[in-house]
Parts: sequence; C-alpha cells; structure tokens
Amino acid sequence: MQWYVVASILTILTSSQGILTTLSQSNGGYKYDYATVPFLAEVFKLIVSSVLLWRECQRSPSPKMTTEWTSVRLYPIPSIIYLIHNNVQFATLTYVDTSTYQIMGNLKIVTTGILFRLFLKRKLSNLQWMAIGLLAIGTTTSQVKGCGEASCDSLFSSPIQGYMLGLLSACLSALAGVYTEFLMKKNNDSLYWQNIQLYTFGAIFNMARLVLDDFRSGFDKGPWWQRLFSGYDITTWLVVLNLGSTGLLVSWLMKYADNIVKVYSTSMAMLLTMVLSVFLFNFKPTVQLYLGIMICMMSLHMYFAPPSMLVDLPLTTKTPQSLREVSVDRSTDS
Amino acid sequence: MQWYVVASILTILTSSQGILTTLSQSNGGYKYDYATVPFLAEVFKLIVSSVLLWRECQRSPSPKMTTEWTSVRLYPIPSIIYLIHNNVQFATLTYVDTSTYQIMGNLKIVTTGILFRLFLKRKLSNLQWMAIGLLAIGTTTSQVKGCGEASCDSLFSSPIQGYMLGLLSACLSALAGVYTEFLMKKNNDSLYWQNIQLYTFGAIFNMARLVLDDFRSGFDKGPWWQRLFSGYDITTWLVVLNLGSTGLLVSWLMKYADNIVKVYSTSMAMLLTMVLSVFLFNFKPTVQLYLGIMICMMSLHMYFAPPSMLVDLPLTTKTPQSLREVSVDRSTDS
Repeated sequence: MQWYVVASILTILTSSQGILTTLSQSNGGYKYDYATVPFLAEVFKLIVSSVLLWRECQRSPSPKMTTEWTSVRLYPIPSIIYLIHNNVQFATLTYVDTSTYQIMGNLKIVTTGILFRLFLKRKLSNLQWMAIGLLAIGTTTSQVKGCGEASCDSLFSSPIQGYMLGLLSACLSALAGVYTEFLMKKNNDSLYWQNIQLYTFGAIFNMARLVLDDFRSGFDKGPWWQRLFSGYDITTWLVVLNLGSTGLLVSWLMKYADNIVKVYSTSMAMLLTMVLSVFLFNFKPTVQLYLGIMICMMSLHMYFAPPSMLVDLPLTTKTPQSLREVSVDRSTDS
Repeated sequence: MQWYVVASILTILTSSQGILTTLSQSNGGYKYDYATVPFLAEVFKLIVSSVLLWRECQRSPSPKMTTEWTSVRLYPIPSIIYLIHNNVQFATLTYVDTSTYQIMGNLKIVTTGILFRLFLKRKLSNLQWMAIGLLAIGTTTSQVKGCGEASCDSLFSSPIQGYMLGLLSACLSALAGVYTEFLMKKNNDSLYWQNIQLYTFGAIFNMARLVLDDFRSGFDKGPWWQRLFSGYDITTWLVVLNLGSTGLLVSWLMKYADNIVKVYSTSMAMLLTMVLSVFLFNFKPTVQLYLGIMICMMSLHMYFAPPSMLVDLPLTTKTPQSLREVSVDRSTDS
C-alpha cells in the first residue's frame, strides 16, 4: 500500500474522531467514562495486531520477531512520554485558557520537524523547513477567533510559565512521535509484533490510569471494570473503533513513512473537521479558516512535490542521456 | 544601484506615506484639499526628472530619446487606466464596506502575476506562483479583524456586483502596472525622458480632476489654484515629497526590475505600516498580524531565493566538471 493512501485514510478517520466524539455526547457531557475509551482502543489494536501476526506466522517465511529484553524494554517508553505529556498538558491549562492552549498546540508541528532532524538524522531541504513552518502558521491561522466571537484571545497575556509549559508539551508530543518512529524502524521486525509490544504497554498504562481514577474518586462509581461499558451506545463503540484504527494507521506510517507524513495527516484532519462542522453543526466559517486551508494546501505541495515540479531545474529539458542517468541515480540516493 | 536597495527604500517610503498622511490630519479630517497632493507630487516628479535629464544631456553620450508621436501617445494610457480604476473603486465602495474592499485589494497581487505572465510573457516557476499566492494570503491574514474589534467582517454578505467590481478593480490596477512596465522596457530611452512623458500626462489628468471638482462644487471654495497650498503645513509638504519620491522609485523599478518586485515592496510596506502603527498610534497588534508577517516573509524568500538554496539540487555536490558546465550554461539561458 502507498503511504499517501494510508495518510488519506488517517486524515478522514482522525477527522471523524472529533465529529463522533461530539455526537457521542449528550447535553454537552458524556454518559460514559471517557477514560475507558483509550483503554478499549488499545485492547482493540492489540487484538487486531495479534490476529494479523498469527496469520503472518501461518505463511512462510515466518515474520521476524526480536524477543530479547533489551529490545522489548524500549516499547513502554512512548507510553511513559505520553503520560508525562498528559500531566504537563494539565499543568499548562492551569496557566493558559483552552484557546491559547490550542494555538500553542501547533508548535508541535515545528518541534516534530526539529526532533526528526536531530534524533532521526533526516535531512530536510530549506523549502521543506519552510513548508513545515507554513503548516504550523496555516493551522494557527484557521484557529484565530473571528470578530463575532464572544471571548477574545488572551494569547499574549498569559503568565510566562504557561508558554514554557506549552513549549515543553510540544516537545514531549514530538519526542513521543519521533521515538516511536525510531522504534518501528530500528529493525525489520514484523510490524504486528512491534504493535503488540507497543499496545500491551499502552493497555497497561491506560488501565493504571483507570485504577488511579478509582482511588482518586474513592470508588464512588465502583471499580473501573464495572464502568467499562456503562453508558456505551453505538456511537461510543464507533469512537473506540475509530481511535483504534487511527492508532494502527499511525503505527504503519511510523514504520513505512515518517512523522512528517503523520503531522500533515493530522493537521489536514483538523481542517477537515472544521469544514465538516460547518455542515454538521452549523459552525460559522471564518475568513481565517479559508486562509488557513489555502496555506496548508500550499505547504503540503511544497513539502511533497518533487523539486523538479516546483522550480525550473536546469536538468529537466533536453538533457543528454548520460547526464540524465547520473541525476536520477543521485536523486534516488538522497 | 541594485534593485533590492531601491525596493527597500520604496518599502520604507510607502510605509511612511500612510503614517505621514495620518499625521497630516487634524481632528480626523484634512485642513487642506487632499486632491491637490497627487497633483503637486506629479509636478515634483516632473521637475526632478527634468533636472536629471538636463544633467544627462550635458554628458556624452547624450541620452536616447524617442520623440515620435507613435511612441509619445502611449504615455497617457497608464493615467487613463488609473482614472477608470478610481471610478470603479468608487462604484465598488457603494456595494461593499471599506474592510471588505481592503481585503479584496489583495487580489491585485494575484492579477498582477497573471497579467505579468500573459502580457509581458514572463515565465514564473510553480514555486514563484505559490509565493505570489502566499503573499496575497499573508497580507489578507494580517488584515483579518480581531475578536475584540467592534464591527464584524461582512466579507461574505456583500452583493455579487461588489465582488465583480472588486475583481475588475484588481485587474485594472494590475493592468496599469504591467502596462507601465511594458512602456519603460519597450526601448532603451533614458528613464528620465520616459518619466517626463509619463508625469506630464499624470499632471494633466490630476489637474483635470481638480477642475472637475471645481465644477462639481460650483466653485464654492474658489478655483483649484487658490486651494493649491491652503492649509499646507510642513507635514503636508512631506506627504507631497514622499508621494513624489515613491513615484520616481516605482518608475525606476518598472524599468530595471519588474512589477512583482513592486508588489512585494508595497505589500511589505503595508505590513511595516501596521507594525509602526503599534508603536506610533497604540494600535493593538493581533495574532493575525504576526501570522501575516511570517507568511509574507516566507513568500519573499520563496520568490527571490535562488532554487539551489531552496531545494537540494542533484547537481550541487561532487558533479563532474563537464556536467557542471552544462548546467551553468543552461541556468543562465533560462
């Protein structure tokens, strides 16, 4: 399968996630315990990956699986980073309002680019760096509050701690992504075997969170397994399936494409959600939404289009055969 | 002189124009007749160009001057286009509010690119087209009303005639620029001789406008020459000198650079004016202003940076000597 097909499906599913989550609410609240959703999604991903690994084992050659502890022990690290990230996120929100937090969230596009370059040693052209910057600017533009909206952006008036924590949050989010890509690509183990390790730890961490919630609330609503399916309806199950599926697609992208593809996919999903909200929830479109969409589309084209399509390369016209071969070889090398 | 030095000076002077015009007002109005300013600016440009041409004539070789009627008769055309443009602008404002008109004004960046391609047959790379699009998006972004501002953009609610006239206005403005570039470049006549022809007609058309105002107002304030310097103070004279100087710089750019350079220069001036207004007039900066500035800076870099700086050209590293020569020849050809 081509990476851009997977990325497009991821965009559509990520976008549906926001819509489905909104549809699963009743009277502005959840009838179910929202913390059970990511846990069940991890279990779903674990089941799917196990089935796929089992099928892969039936065929020959049998899939490559590294089972040494030195390898397995790396797989809880993304979960640990996300755990820290969630706490930093919580701390950030005590200093800044949600609108400022949302705007700052776009920083993770840039931090992902930087960590991608530093840790994974992937070189980006000057134009690709600009494209990444533009993607962050485009998503931010689309989120700027319109003149008719009641509350005003307090974007420049939060305490400095808020901005520092927001930056830390963006770095942690990028680190988790870049680390996962490193894990998935460090050897040619079966994707499903890698998934099983990743999601087992994911399920454990999510379960720990549910247990912690139980203790925090003093078991008011009973132990977590009793809350697991209570208040669930068809939409809630769709939210779980959707979250699980996006997770599986992200794993695939981390192994066969990269973090930048994922960042584009989720940014486009954010814009798609806003466009769909115009039709589904009578959300009023703003000029800045249209501007943001145009900026992100240009960024997408700048990042992924082959350089020969963007600039007039001296090589493209009437090149002697020998010369063309040299250039093709070199471009596939890099 | 390098074109980017001239373009930078033009940016600073164009930006000062807005500031000076605001400073020349008293109690929100003009003590002087604003229509006299462009007329005096034309006269100023005419005097400066005449002096410079006279100095050029003292030296040898004497400057080239085409005096045939078939050439001279082309010089009133830019003035005629501006005259039509001003009337279309007036008609547009009966359908749309000034804020919508200002936003639509950014369309002229795109129409200039298109007419530049169609009439002057200048080829632009895919990336340069994107840069022009981004410049228009960036200037629009900076103008989007903030959430704290009282009146709300009625950008999508004007009658269709308003948008059509706005588009026509953008086309006429671009046509005047592109036609002037054609005039300045069609032969290697002295720039000052070309200026004299251009500004003579400019002065005549501006004078005609003053006479027309006289008839419209029924000579309430006396004939136009009596209004010429009334209410003028030092700031008003600075406005005249500034407008004249920017005109001279634009002529220079039209001959030795091009319309796209001018468009970048005036767009950057618009942003600079907004930034200066923050300091001078306690104008409150919005997030969209910062976003707009970043977008325009990226657009500038995308348009003017050499392709080899933007993308990793296969040729740049360890190219055999013969191959490098081929590519250098070709890039200077195009």
